[in-house]
Amino acid sequence: MDIIKPRTLSGFMELLPGKQIQFERMVSILRDTYSSYGFAPLDTPVIEDAQILLAKGGGETEKQIYRFQKGDSDLALRFDLTVPLAKYVALHCNDLAFPFRRFQISKVYRGERAQRGRFREFYQADIDIIGDGKLDILNEAEIPAIIYKVFRGFGLERFQIRVNNRKILNGFYAMLNLSDKSGEIMRTVDKLDKIGQEKTMMLLMDDCGIAKEQATQIMDFIAINGNNKYNLLRLQEYAGRNEIFDQGLAELKTVCDNLAAFGVPEENFAIDLTIARGLDYYTGTVYETTLLDHPEIGSVCSGGRYDNLAGYYIEKQLPGVGISIGLTRLFYVLDEQGLLNPALPTAPADALVLPMTAEPGPAIALAEALRSNGLKVQLYGEQKKFKQKMAYANKLGVPYAVLLGEDEIAEGKCSVKNMVTGEQVKLTPAEAAAHIKAGLDLGNVPIILEK
Amino acid sequence: MDIIKPRTLSGFMELLPGKQIQFERMVSILRDTYSSYGFAPLDTPVIEDAQILLAKGGGETEKQIYRFQKGDSDLALRFDLTVPLAKYVALHCNDLAFPFRRFQISKVYRGERAQRGRFREFYQADIDIIGDGKLDILNEAEIPAIIYKVFRGFGLERFQIRVNNRKILNGFYAMLNLSDKSGEIMRTVDKLDKIGQEKTMMLLMDDCGIAKEQATQIMDFIAINGNNKYNLLRLQEYAGRNEIFDQGLAELKTVCDNLAAFGVPEENFAIDLTIARGLDYYTGTVYETTLLDHPEIGSVCSGGRYDNLAGYYIEKQLPGVGISIGLTRLFYVLDEQGLLNPALPTAPADALVLPMTAEPGPAIALAEALRSNGLKVQLYGEQKKFKQKMAYANKLGVPYAVLLGEDEIAEGKCSVKNMVTGEQVKLTPAEAAAHIKAGLDLGNVPIILEK
Repeated sequence: MDIIKPRTLSGFMELLPGKQIQFERMVSILRDTYSSYGFAPLDTPVIEDAQILLAKGGGETEKQIYRFQKGDSDLALRFDLTVPLAKYVALHCNDLAFPFRRFQISKVYRGERAQRGRFREFYQADIDIIGDGKLDILNEAEIPAIIYKVFRGFGLERFQIRVNNRKILNGFYAMLNLSDKSGEIMRTVDKLDKIGQEKTMMLLMDDCGIAKEQATQIMDFIAINGNNKYNLLRLQEYAGRNEIFDQGLAELKTVCDNLAAFGVPEENFAIDLTIARGLDYYTGTVYETTLLDHPEIGSVCSGGRYDNLAGYYIEKQLPGVGISIGLTRLFYVLDEQGLLNPALPTAPADALVLPMTAEPGPAIALAEALRSNGLKVQLYGEQKKFKQKMAYANKLGVPYAVLLGEDEIAEGKCSVKNMVTGEQVKLTPAEAAAHIKAGLDLGNVPIILEK
Repeated sequence: MDIIKPRTLSGFMELLPGKQIQFERMVSILRDTYSSYGFAPLDTPVIEDAQILLAKGGGETEKQIYRFQKGDSDLALRFDLTVPLAKYVALHCNDLAFPFRRFQISKVYRGERAQRGRFREFYQADIDIIGDGKLDILNEAEIPAIIYKVFRGFGLERFQIRVNNRKILNGFYAMLNLSDKSGEIMRTVDKLDKIGQEKTMMLLMDDCGIAKEQATQIMDFIAINGNNKYNLLRLQEYAGRNEIFDQGLAELKTVCDNLAAFGVPEENFAIDLTIARGLDYYTGTVYETTLLDHPEIGSVCSGGRYDNLAGYYIEKQLPGVGISIGLTRLFYVLDEQGLLNPALPTAPADALVLPMTAEPGPAIALAEALRSNGLKVQLYGEQKKFKQKMAYANKLGVPYAVLLGEDEIAEGKCSVKNMVTGEQVKLTPAEAAAHIKAGLDLGNVPIILEK
C-alpha cells in the first residue's frame, strides 16, 4: 500500500489528549457561566452562502475568507460568529423572543499568513444580547460582569476589563471640530500603549494633520487615567458642551454603577479613554480585557454596544451588545507561558481498573460500580504483564490505578493505588470511590495560574 | 443600504433556541457517558489536506467531498471522523498511550443531493479504541455496552444493539466456496429486511449467480434468528469446518458473555447474522442499533472491529473498534416523529427575574443570589409594562418568573411565579432557589419518548 505522510495543516491547532482536556476545561467554564446567565446555546453552519457572509464586504475579510464553489453554489466558511448571528436573527426574528441572548463557542476560519501563534481555524466564544428596536443600558454592564465571572472561573484575579464609550469620544472630537477625522484619531490614539506619548502626539499632527493646540487637548484628554471616580469627575469637566458627549458620559456612569451592583470589584474594571475598538459598528460602550501580568498578550476579550446588527439583511433596527473571546489564541498563549495549572489532572480517566485475573467479569463489575459513583473509569482489558500495565497507567497520567486480583476478589475489595504518592490501600468498591473522589478534590485550585 | 435576503443553505441544520437546547441535552449525555468510560475528547480540524483525506480514495466519498484550493493548497472538509482519527493516530503515535481511547462529537461534510432529512453538514458522535499491534476482544463488548448506556441515558428502553462477526460470514461463505462473491452476497442479504426472503433468494441466484442449493443454504443460515443462546447453538452446528468461522464464533460468544457482564440486558442486544456493514475495513465484530418501535429509521448507531486503521499513513498495525452515531439525522427524525419529550424545559433560563422598580440594584443582587444557588437566571432589564414582561417570559418558555417590587424589596423577599400553574409565592432568595429547584426536578424523565 502506498503510504501518504500524515500531517495537519499549518495554522490548525490539533492537541494531544492531555492538552485537549485542559482546553475542554476552559470551554466548560465558558459554557457553564454563559448558561448561568440564561444565554441560549447557538450553533450555526460553518458554511454559508458567500454573498451573505460578505454582505458587508471589503478589506481584509474578503482576502482571508475561505471561499469556494460547489456545484453552482458560491460558498464560504464563516470568519467570525457575528455575521452568522446577524443572519440568524434576521432570518428567524419572528420566532425569537427579544431581547435575544445567545452564546456560541465555535470555530471560525481566516486564511491568514501562517505564523507562530496565529491560527487559520480558531474558536471564538461569544455572547450577545440583541434587542428589537431598543435595548436597555443595563445589558452593557451585564456583559462585562459575565466576563468577570468567566475569568474568575478560570482562577484569575489579576485581570482588568477596560471600558470606554464611543459617544464620549465622538462627542469630544465634535467639540474640537474634528468629527471628520475621528476615525483616524482613534486609530492613532489606540497605539499609545505601544508607541508612547511623544510619538502619538507627532502622528496626530503629522499624519492626521491636526493643529498642535488640538493635539495637546487630545493628549490631555486621553491622559485622564486615575481611578474610576476620578476619571468620571474629570470627564464631567467637559460636560454641557456636546449632547453626544453628555449621553456617553451618562451611559458610562450607569455602566460603572451597575458593574459594582453585579459584584465586580473596582480593581477588575477601569475606565480607559484610549480604547475605541477598530470596528465602525460599535456605537456606545466598548470593552477590552487585559491580563495585568501579561500585557504583551493584548486584549483577550473585546466587544461593545452596536446599534444595527443586521442592517444588511433586514430593515428592522436590532441594537445589541456583545463580547468575544479568541479562545484558541488565548489557550495557545497561556500554554506557551506555562500558565495552565499543572496541578490539574490531564488524564481522560480518574481511575484505571487493572484486572489481574484472566476472567474479566469482576473487573467489569468493579469499573461499573466506580462509574455509578460518578467517577470516570477506564477498564484496561489487554493481556499484558503487570509492569506494562503500570507503564500504561503512567503514560496516561491517570491519578489512580485500581488493581483487582484473586485476593481482592475473594475479599470483595480492590487495591487503590495513588499514582503520584504510590500509596496503596485495599477498599470495598464504595470506599474506593469515596477515597478517589476525596483525593481528586483539590479544593479551589485555579485552572490558569497568574504567573 | 442594499438588503440581501438572509438564508441558511439547504441541507444545513440551524435550530431555534428551544430545539437547540433539546439537541444540546443529547450531546451532553453523549459527552458525559463517553467521558465516564475514560475516553479522551478529541478535536481535529474541519479542513485537512485533500490528498490525506482522500488517501483511500474512490467512489461516493470523492464525489460528495467539499474540496477547494486556497493559495497553492488542495484542501477538503472532513467527511467523517474516522479518517481524521487515522491521520491523528498515525501522526502522533509516539505521544499516545495505547490502547488510545477517544471520543469526538463534531460536524462532518458531505455534498449529497439535498433532500428532506438528509444533511450536508451533520454531527457524528464517535468512540474508538485503538490498539498498537493487538487489541483485546474485551473492547468489542465495552463499545456496545457504552452505547447501551447512552441510549438508556436518553430514556429509551425499546432499542436493540445487533451484533454479528465478519469472520463468521467470511468463514461461512468459504465453506460454500463463495469467498469471491462474499461482498456481493453480504450486500444482497443486507436488503432482507426491506425486500423479504423470496426476493432476496431471487437476487442471490439471478444477480449474484449463485446455485439454488447454495442460495438455500445462505437463506437457512441467515434465518437463524432466535434468542442469543439458540443462535449460538445453531451456529455451533457449523463449527469445525472452517478456521475463520470458528474464530468468529468464539469471538461472538465472548462478546455476548462480556456484554452480559457489563449489565446489558439480553433484550437490548441480539445476534443478527444479516448484519455485515458495507465497509470493507471491518474484520470482526460489527454492530447496528435499531429503535424497536421505529424500524423505519434504520440503524442509528453502527460500527465494528477493524484491523488496520491507518494503513494509508503508517506502516504500524493499528487495530481498533469503534462506533458512530449520526446525531443530526437521529435528532431530526426524533423531532419529526414528536419523540423529544415536551415535558422537559426548552428555555435557556430556569428563572427570569423581573425588576418592578426603576433602580436595578436589588434585582441584580437577587439574580446573582439565585445563580450562586446553581440556577440559570436571566435578568430582564428592559423598561416595559408588566404585561409585556410577562409576554416575554411566556415566549421564552421560562418555567419561573421572579418578581421584585417595592414590597418584596422591603421584606427581603421575592415573588416566585410558576409560569405553568400560575401559582405565586413570596420567598426569600434562598427559599426561592430551593423552591425553583424542587419544581424543576422532574425525577427520572426520559429525554426521548418511545412512541
